[in-house]
Amino acid sequence: MTPMPHDVAPVSANGKSLDLADAPSNGQPRERRLAFYQWLIRHLFPGVKVPIRIVFYNGIEVATAPGTPIATVRIRDRTTFLLMAVNLDMTFGDAYSEGRIEVEGDFLAFLVEAFRAPPAPATVQVLRHWIARWNARPRPNSVDKSRDNVWHHYDLGNDFYKLWLDEQLVYTCAYFPTSTATLEEAQIAKMERVCRKLWLKPGETVVEAGCGWGALARHMAKHHGVKVRAFNLSREQVAYARQRAREEGLADRIEYVEADYRSITGQYDVFVSVGMLEHVGPQNYRALGRLIHSVLKPTGRGLIHSIGRNHPCRTNPWLEKRIFPGAYMPSPREIARIFEPLDFSVVDVENLRLHYAKTLEHWLQRFDGVADKVRDMFDERFVRMWRMYLASSQAGFLSGTIQLFQYVFVPGKSNEIPWTRDQLYDRPTYPVPHHTSLSNGVMNGHGSL
Amino acid sequence: MTPMPHDVAPVSANGKSLDLADAPSNGQPRERRLAFYQWLIRHLFPGVKVPIRIVFYNGIEVATAPGTPIATVRIRDRTTFLLMAVNLDMTFGDAYSEGRIEVEGDFLAFLVEAFRAPPAPATVQVLRHWIARWNARPRPNSVDKSRDNVWHHYDLGNDFYKLWLDEQLVYTCAYFPTSTATLEEAQIAKMERVCRKLWLKPGETVVEAGCGWGALARHMAKHHGVKVRAFNLSREQVAYARQRAREEGLADRIEYVEADYRSITGQYDVFVSVGMLEHVGPQNYRALGRLIHSVLKPTGRGLIHSIGRNHPCRTNPWLEKRIFPGAYMPSPREIARIFEPLDFSVVDVENLRLHYAKTLEHWLQRFDGVADKVRDMFDERFVRMWRMYLASSQAGFLSGTIQLFQYVFVPGKSNEIPWTRDQLYDRPTYPVPHHTSLSNGVMNGHGSL
Repeated sequence: MTPMPHDVAPVSANGKSLDLADAPSNGQPRERRLAFYQWLIRHLFPGVKVPIRIVFYNGIEVATAPGTPIATVRIRDRTTFLLMAVNLDMTFGDAYSEGRIEVEGDFLAFLVEAFRAPPAPATVQVLRHWIARWNARPRPNSVDKSRDNVWHHYDLGNDFYKLWLDEQLVYTCAYFPTSTATLEEAQIAKMERVCRKLWLKPGETVVEAGCGWGALARHMAKHHGVKVRAFNLSREQVAYARQRAREEGLADRIEYVEADYRSITGQYDVFVSVGMLEHVGPQNYRALGRLIHSVLKPTGRGLIHSIGRNHPCRTNPWLEKRIFPGAYMPSPREIARIFEPLDFSVVDVENLRLHYAKTLEHWLQRFDGVADKVRDMFDERFVRMWRMYLASSQAGFLSGTIQLFQYVFVPGKSNEIPWTRDQLYDRPTYPVPHHTSLSNGVMNGHGSL
Repeated sequence: MTPMPHDVAPVSANGKSLDLADAPSNGQPRERRLAFYQWLIRHLFPGVKVPIRIVFYNGIEVATAPGTPIATVRIRDRTTFLLMAVNLDMTFGDAYSEGRIEVEGDFLAFLVEAFRAPPAPATVQVLRHWIARWNARPRPNSVDKSRDNVWHHYDLGNDFYKLWLDEQLVYTCAYFPTSTATLEEAQIAKMERVCRKLWLKPGETVVEAGCGWGALARHMAKHHGVKVRAFNLSREQVAYARQRAREEGLADRIEYVEADYRSITGQYDVFVSVGMLEHVGPQNYRALGRLIHSVLKPTGRGLIHSIGRNHPCRTNPWLEKRIFPGAYMPSPREIARIFEPLDFSVVDVENLRLHYAKTLEHWLQRFDGVADKVRDMFDERFVRMWRMYLASSQAGFLSGTIQLFQYVFVPGKSNEIPWTRDQLYDRPTYPVPHHTSLSNGVMNGHGSL
């Protein structure tokens, strides 16, 4: 046996030599081939400390570390194996979707470990980036392209999303007041918290950029007595949102507009955007800041809720190509481009990444429960692609690769800000109070002069 | 009369012509001189919409807007007047300190309006910047210079600070749970909130960078059962802190180290820094991030509390020269330089600027109450200089020119973060509980896998 590198052990790592009985048995070349596979695994998963077993198409098996493997990855053909070496993310995602890669055991734990692994050497990263870019250029977020990008994902059909989202179809990070809250409860708690962070007062006007199926707009109008104009590019979502607002008797207080956020005009007390910034693209952040500045009253408040990063990172090319064309998750430094040029004042930031992991846990569980129905609607490849997307997103939040930021901000000269955050916590966020008095507790800075 | 520009009105703006009886009466030149003064005031206070009356050394009076003036500014000599035109901030501060400028009426409201005025044209700003820089270069924050910078301000003598700070000598932004809380209560509430945000557990180790007179370290050790190593460059402050820790029987749990924060070594559960970042200088933020990374355990937590800005701004040259050599107040984008290169995760940001305005209101009131004693310790110039500093700081926070950010952060891969912020609010922050159970409520992200 050749000596085993520290982080690549044969799968039967209890001291016995590797059983290569299933592999083509041709003496010396077999040993050399094993060494090559070990080198490759070390290169693909540098520094992974937990044992993951990899079984190649030719029966050769290696593991990332000694011990009982948390998962077994089966690579079914030679092409997949070779492509992984040059374009890991894209190949892994596509090959998993198409069944050319199979993962047995704890899929989530496997993904968490893969995400937690130390990054590859800088040269390898640059090479991978260019190969991935050559393979799939990130899509731009111009007005035209944004529409295509949105349709790609959000217009898959309301019936599809109804299968596994909560009853109100809220497709963003929920807030779990307790770990035992249901998904439905957690989505309501999230919406209520957004309203409280925005210090909504009855009669105020709200503009929402990217409203999904319209649940937040309905919650605001119903429970906080505000008027909402909500923008969304997805035809399917807007149709659903309008229908439901009519059914709930809220049509006179909510206007759903099928248009790009860049079409927003008017003057509002509140700007809110939950889960849209990911689709805006950092090159448009300054323009977004100018837009918010132009539509927000001088005493207004704003909230942006978005997936983010601890530092700038390229979007995973598979996710960008197959799931969210044009998506980009910004770091706080990048998000500052929205606020700083226009003198917006950041008053509150909360990072809810573990809540998004929990949300995705619920979604994935529900998705798996309706996989047969999804297969009937689409096909097996779609089911596996979405499982890959949901599980890797959950793993991303659990591993700290991605964050969930809620930013509350006000125009820089406004003193119309809550004196403390007590109002977020003075009553339980769940169950939701049906009419919330928001008149007390405000302390205008000028008042203390 | 020449027509009055929109924003520069004669002081008796009730339609009657300006009374120039006290000014040298020489016909045509007097009118021309008035026009010049009006032009100058428009240039110095562009776009000020509230009436401020300016009385020049030669008796000429103008106002920034029609109406009853909120304050009267008396410029006592020609040199001051001319210097103001070229180096406004520096001249105003120095001239006020030396009694060459007097402000009657509402000093604070005058400062707020001056800060709220739209910025001068870019060319004027650049010119002013270079003149101010030529007049007084910002001091660097090397290890040697930092010591000088700290001594300049914090070693004015404990007796001086005892005159007007709270009983524990906390010289940073307090947290007022209610608008009627006393300064003493609000400082305790602030310290308790810092502890709760840091999720302190008995037996943990804390390193504090810049500990002032040591109150936070004492609060942590006494009420949360942690061990603290607290660094400070100020000899006077460290001597006081050690003495008081001995008196309170905390000497075995707190080590006060008279050294620069760059001397910190070891491994700690918690890094905390309240009111030091302003003295670090943005060129040192990356190094600060590396330092924190090297001393914080992988499951540790950190908190940085600092005056900041909505967007990068030069420090007021008068403040930098006379009060805080080397001081710089960063924007969120600049603060990100500490966190992003080392993959720190920002979990909570709170902006407490109105609380700092309130804190300064208390300080200024107390300072004015002991002005005679301060005059005996120093001189009249010192009293006026400090009144200028305290009042302009209060005005800065009230006008939104400066912010107070509390950042909570953890290493990027740590899931040892509070599930919600409930623990900050589940008991009143004031009065302070004497022993706080912090064992429940944590929800480890991994636990939910």
